[in-house]
Amino acid sequence: MLSQQIAVDRVFHALGDPTRRAIVEKLSHGPISVSVLAKPLDITLAAVVQHLQILEESGLVHTEKTGRVRTCQIEPKGFALVEKWINDRRALWERRFDRLGALLSEPEQK
Amino acid sequence: MLSQQIAVDRVFHALGDPTRRAIVEKLSHGPISVSVLAKPLDITLAAVVQHLQILEESGLVHTEKTGRVRTCQIEPKGFALVEKWINDRRALWERRFDRLGALLSEPEQK
Repeated sequence: MLSQQIAVDRVFHALGDPTRRAIVEKLSHGPISVSVLAKPLDITLAAVVQHLQILEESGLVHTEKTGRVRTCQIEPKGFALVEKWINDRRALWERRFDRLGALLSEPEQK
Repeated sequence: MLSQQIAVDRVFHALGDPTRRAIVEKLSHGPISVSVLAKPLDITLAAVVQHLQILEESGLVHTEKTGRVRTCQIEPKGFALVEKWINDRRALWERRFDRLGALLSEPEQK
């Protein structure tokens, strides 16, 4: 349960940064190498590597080194975590609305 | 299109903070006043108000003042935005996997 909390914290922290979301948007079109990824982002290669590390640790991106090239691709696991967190919250507030609706539709006591 | 981008930036920034996610978790159980919300969070009322303002601007929370009490509740709009952003990205990467799958299942040319 605690590790689930840490995983949720990590993934929201990762997606809270606009550069990391730009990396996710780029990788959604298909896997690319770190250097190709870095080019249009207008930040240093070291900064991109750091962002990728955070994305990888949170389960949003997977990177793999083949020879001298490190390729990055989307890892669906982290996104599923965000959706689960929202769905769990929504289940709570919708249950409340349902109870409220049931209460309001009850026939008046005379 | 630009305003959609700003809205997405806002909502991910808002959810990137652990205290703001704690506020969302609390409000998922039902509306409460700002002072009741602040009590277990172990931060000043002023800090809570600031967090609520960010949550309200990003469409995740709605607050309303009645007399001297400001009540906060979940606003589903912001959550729908996060889900849409993930679904749009997923549509891209799944389309790619489908194309790859189709390519791999094609009969070999002789």
